[in-house]
Amino acid sequence: MSDRTEILRRFLEDVWNQGEEAAVDRYLASAYKIEHDPHDPWHGKTLTRDEFKQRLRAARAPFPDQRFTVVHSAAEADRVAAAWAWSATHKGDAPGLPATGRAVTMTGITFYFFDSDDRLTGHWQAVDRLGVMMQLRA
Amino acid sequence: MSDRTEILRRFLEDVWNQGEEAAVDRYLASAYKIEHDPHDPWHGKTLTRDEFKQRLRAARAPFPDQRFTVVHSAAEADRVAAAWAWSATHKGDAPGLPATGRAVTMTGITFYFFDSDDRLTGHWQAVDRLGVMMQLRA
Repeated sequence: MSDRTEILRRFLEDVWNQGEEAAVDRYLASAYKIEHDPHDPWHGKTLTRDEFKQRLRAARAPFPDQRFTVVHSAAEADRVAAAWAWSATHKGDAPGLPATGRAVTMTGITFYFFDSDDRLTGHWQAVDRLGVMMQLRA
Repeated sequence: MSDRTEILRRFLEDVWNQGEEAAVDRYLASAYKIEHDPHDPWHGKTLTRDEFKQRLRAARAPFPDQRFTVVHSAAEADRVAAAWAWSATHKGDAPGLPATGRAVTMTGITFYFFDSDDRLTGHWQAVDRLGVMMQLRA
């Protein structure tokens, strides 16, 4: 496992699982580009660290106990690809999805990009959002 | 770029873009496990080369001019992760989706796994199927 794979695992744990906003300053470059993330409101945008914290807060609000677990990874050059499983309880309202209280699972794969200081500069992502819709709208 | 990344690009071109069934024998190990591919009818199954050819035929039938283009890749150990963009014309019926004649695009990321002979042993995939549904059912 590369050092960057380990950095990425800690980023997912501290930032996305624990929701530690201060950790964003440690892991992110000053600009973070969401190169590709279909159906994500921030798709195509370049965020400052503060804007990333707002995104983190908004994304975690409906799913406060969310957990990402890395299933597979591959590191090469400036990138680490991570296949992940996500689980959460739908406790708060999301756009178009009022809180259901349901346990929900999701999978996806993300290419994360690093700069030479090992800080994250952005991502390119594919997520099974159809599966989430089927669980929350059924 | 690793040799396996190049093999993977050729596999996508020959097998998925060109639909060359005989090429399956060159690229695939004798057993191919679809470890994870939500909403795919073969999710979780282990296929022989002949069963893989049936899957190829069934998957290409509604979209005979389909094209995968690799956008990002990362190779490590026994795997290559590939982020791809797909485009096709919806010319034939698919389960639940009668032919629309529409141009359709899709993105996804796949972890492909290789054996020591550089043959493919399976994949773990995340695909934006929600985006496809929105294009074909709108």
